[in-house]
Amino acid sequence: MAETSPSPLLEAAHPRAARRAVAEALDENFELDQAFVEEVSAALRADSREQVRELVGELHYADMADLLERLDAEDRRLLVDAVRDTFNPDVLPELAGEVRDEVMDALGFEDLAFALRELDSDDAVYVAGKLEPEERAQLLARMPPDTRSLIEQGIAYGEHTAGRLMQRELVATPAYWTVGETIDFLRSGRKTPEKFYAVFVVDPRHRPLGVVELHRVLKAKRTEHMRDLIDPEIDVIPTDMDREEVAYLFRQRDLTAAPVVDKSGRLIGQITIDDVVDVMDETAGQDILKMAGVRTQEDTSLYRSVISTAQSRLIWLVINLGTAFLASSVIGVFEHSIEKLSALAVLMPICASMGGNAGTQTLATVIRSLATRELNVGNVVRVVWKELFIGSINGLLFAAITGLFAYVWFKDILLGVVIGGAMICNMIAAGLAGITIPVILERLGADPADSAVVFLTTVTDCVGFFTFLGLATWILL
Amino acid sequence: MAETSPSPLLEAAHPRAARRAVAEALDENFELDQAFVEEVSAALRADSREQVRELVGELHYADMADLLERLDAEDRRLLVDAVRDTFNPDVLPELAGEVRDEVMDALGFEDLAFALRELDSDDAVYVAGKLEPEERAQLLARMPPDTRSLIEQGIAYGEHTAGRLMQRELVATPAYWTVGETIDFLRSGRKTPEKFYAVFVVDPRHRPLGVVELHRVLKAKRTEHMRDLIDPEIDVIPTDMDREEVAYLFRQRDLTAAPVVDKSGRLIGQITIDDVVDVMDETAGQDILKMAGVRTQEDTSLYRSVISTAQSRLIWLVINLGTAFLASSVIGVFEHSIEKLSALAVLMPICASMGGNAGTQTLATVIRSLATRELNVGNVVRVVWKELFIGSINGLLFAAITGLFAYVWFKDILLGVVIGGAMICNMIAAGLAGITIPVILERLGADPADSAVVFLTTVTDCVGFFTFLGLATWILL
Repeated sequence: MAETSPSPLLEAAHPRAARRAVAEALDENFELDQAFVEEVSAALRADSREQVRELVGELHYADMADLLERLDAEDRRLLVDAVRDTFNPDVLPELAGEVRDEVMDALGFEDLAFALRELDSDDAVYVAGKLEPEERAQLLARMPPDTRSLIEQGIAYGEHTAGRLMQRELVATPAYWTVGETIDFLRSGRKTPEKFYAVFVVDPRHRPLGVVELHRVLKAKRTEHMRDLIDPEIDVIPTDMDREEVAYLFRQRDLTAAPVVDKSGRLIGQITIDDVVDVMDETAGQDILKMAGVRTQEDTSLYRSVISTAQSRLIWLVINLGTAFLASSVIGVFEHSIEKLSALAVLMPICASMGGNAGTQTLATVIRSLATRELNVGNVVRVVWKELFIGSINGLLFAAITGLFAYVWFKDILLGVVIGGAMICNMIAAGLAGITIPVILERLGADPADSAVVFLTTVTDCVGFFTFLGLATWILL
Repeated sequence: MAETSPSPLLEAAHPRAARRAVAEALDENFELDQAFVEEVSAALRADSREQVRELVGELHYADMADLLERLDAEDRRLLVDAVRDTFNPDVLPELAGEVRDEVMDALGFEDLAFALRELDSDDAVYVAGKLEPEERAQLLARMPPDTRSLIEQGIAYGEHTAGRLMQRELVATPAYWTVGETIDFLRSGRKTPEKFYAVFVVDPRHRPLGVVELHRVLKAKRTEHMRDLIDPEIDVIPTDMDREEVAYLFRQRDLTAAPVVDKSGRLIGQITIDDVVDVMDETAGQDILKMAGVRTQEDTSLYRSVISTAQSRLIWLVINLGTAFLASSVIGVFEHSIEKLSALAVLMPICASMGGNAGTQTLATVIRSLATRELNVGNVVRVVWKELFIGSINGLLFAAITGLFAYVWFKDILLGVVIGGAMICNMIAAGLAGITIPVILERLGADPADSAVVFLTTVTDCVGFFTFLGLATWILL
């Protein structure tokens, strides 16, 4: 719409100055403009609060969160101070962990308690759940009893459960209500959430009978009954369902809102599609980190301190050092062979490297298939055979290429045969390890992405070195 | 709700038999039960269509898609035949690529054309877009001109653009309409989409002025005007916006629906949150595959044929073979050193392996930060320094451990010093390569996840072997 003149209606809704500030804040990719960030920073350092408020006044809360992340620690504190009395609490759940801690510190318990009261219960639970227990107690002591009790209940659910994810605010109607009664109730503005996608129809004991998406309410006549509008299939979520399970259910059934029930089947909350988007955002990206051996407990944001980041990567590196020494000890067995024929040392890493890479390809495919539930008991045997077959084909192919290269390089046809044979063995081993390791981890109840690569490269390094050096010792020496 | 008796209301909506079939089809994780799949397969082979229809009659379309994927090719064709006249077209977009091709083949052009007419335009475009051009032409020839034209327009947009993603069906009202007029229009059932989340308010030239989520329509009085309900911030999506950009915008702004406009700014379609969930689902999982070197053009499903799967992994393996030989040639330079001291061959893989892993950790973190836009021009320098620092700390730590082990193993203190020095160098190189490679790839307009690991391991292998063997040659020999 850049070339068309703005409509008079929009102009009325947004005074020109405010719109300009927002437009300047974001670049064409809807990201914060670096020049804007620097302008805010300069205004903060110059202590001109008026200018700061004018600059950030019209920012969307997600952009405000980005701004806080982009500023350094001192500017962050100054900014919180400058906007303290107009601080939008929706900023808090959007912040990366370490930045959020700083912002909450800067707000102080009084203002933080006030902010949390304004949030939907799921967001308030999320933010309060990130605090240390003693901080949380101090914070909750400053809240009205009903809000405090909702937050305490939310935090009591396990961190990755539906209970943590749900919001308590929802719209529920009896089955005998008409559409007209429902709309009149919503217009009355009594106890309706700020934002909702569906109305839940409940029985007299407050157990969910069905979900009515809002477009169905709008399309129905006033005289129709809510019970006649419900979707025949209802997916009811228990509070202890794993959040990834919840996300799967939403994707599989194209849901926008689903009822959460307590043990007696009573409706106590709802999970909505935007919560699921957040879960997907968080978990989908974590597989890549887990596979690479980066611990992801709290968060892996760039804003973590150097020490904390180094620590989070340490465990994996220590384990890798152990497996590297294990692979070295395999080489150590054949030290005399290498003394006799140093070409072995030169060619030795090739089979191990190819196996590691082929195995990682299989591993990534299997981890992804487990995540999307494409891989299951019904087809696991078929997939194992397929990977075995692929390993053999690729093994034969690369055996031929590598054998030829080795022969050309060292003018030794038997050396080519040895490296070719080792290549076939390690490619098959890589395919098998790539599929069995994550499947076994999953069966054992572990996360298939977590640490699967350590096991895999241990197998491919050891098999690669052992078959190459073993075959060489047997055939060449 | 398992222990409570089903409500009479629900019973009325679902005859008991049908509900039982569905309950048996799914296990407690909402996945298809293997026993159910086998029952369907047996019924198909026994050619008892009645039983097949009874078994699958009440399945949700997503579960029907899973069932088709779980069956083998022959059963798939039999199942399509058995349910041909009641085939739910919503199954098609849910299917994995190769299975979808088979199902579309089994349906034939006539039935496929009929199915596509029933779909929302975005789903129809998605499915038709997966066909070969000549097949598509045959299919479109069997459709009514208006549907054909919508599909052709959709396919004309680039594959990963907003234009492809949008659906044409939407609800738009003039700004001067009241809530009452809007509701009456929706109740009239004229040209309203099957499912929608928001009403778009347009000016007389059909340019979007704002979005009104349905809960706002429901909460407003009948006499209020639509222009007074619009969200002051409107995010307008041009048809050529990249779909990952669209997904980012939805997540950042917590949108449920956004208007898509043509070059003159006129509203021509909408993108909804469920489309974004599909995009997230597809793209988030792809980073892990790309990083591992699995090509992801069309799809990487387990249902691809063996040959096609082997091919898709070949390019990366060939490149890796090249870099493995490059690393070998680095070792080859020091062949005489290894001849003199075979312990070098034994210890040589350790530095390379540790560098590769530390680098991959950095790489995964950086790729993830680029995807979430946490990493940007404003902080890239800070992050480079941080990674340098982490590399130095980890380098020093593992230099000490590895040096000690090497000394204990080979009783040679200088060998420990050499491997320690090489470790420090390679850990720093790994950190630098882990951040600069994806950032440079991104700057060049390439995908930062794609092939980043090839470049990284080339750096860490070469630097690892070179520093270790070079230092050894210089100090020990």
